Amino acid sequence: MERVCFTLQVRPERLDEYKQRHQGVWPEMLRALSETGWHNYSLFLREDGLLIGYLETPDFQNALERMEALEVNQRWQREMAPFFKGLAGRPDEGMMRLEEVFHLD
Amino acid sequence: MERVCFTLQVRPERLDEYKQRHQGVWPEMLRALSETGWHNYSLFLREDGLLIGYLETPDFQNALERMEALEVNQRWQREMAPFFKGLAGRPDEGMMRLEEVFHLD
Repeated sequence: MERVCFTLQVRPERLDEYKQRHQGVWPEMLRALSETGWHNYSLFLREDGLLIGYLETPDFQNALERMEALEVNQRWQREMAPFFKGLAGRPDEGMMRLEEVFHLD
Repeated sequence: MERVCFTLQVRPERLDEYKQRHQGVWPEMLRALSETGWHNYSLFLREDGLLIGYLETPDFQNALERMEALEVNQRWQREMAPFFKGLAGRPDEGMMRLEEVFHLD
């Protein structure tokens, strides 16, 4: 399994709404994530809008590409895009992946 | 299990050394982490020095307090402190914990 961590930047004025939307992620979107290999997937939010994603997946590049191809993901990403700062395209294209520098099972 | 995510800020000019030190964490320190409940623990580093920690633990407050009490951790934290920015005390006292806003098993 690859352990993946990425960051994005949520607009500070839209944090509450962002949180609320993530309490009601569409079941079809959750199913798509599971089926394309997004496991133990969490999003964490800092008060200044820093969003941190963590997930485990057999192959992150593959998991990304399989999600990108799905219509439900395109709809979701279009709805999420206005919540983010500094994005040219869709949020799933703007994720900044971080290097893992330490791990302990 | 609690899923915990925290951030710290590493001095950009010391990133390489920070990474190097984390390839050789003392075995005694690793054992202490495991024994005090730090599981599936990763550190991720962004190029600007943003350090992100992720771990799973039965009780984070308890895991922190048990580590704080150990001599090996005090030694480790003293050696790590100069790598960080904006810390008044030890790194393990300066961790900023983030709110989990989404999770998918």
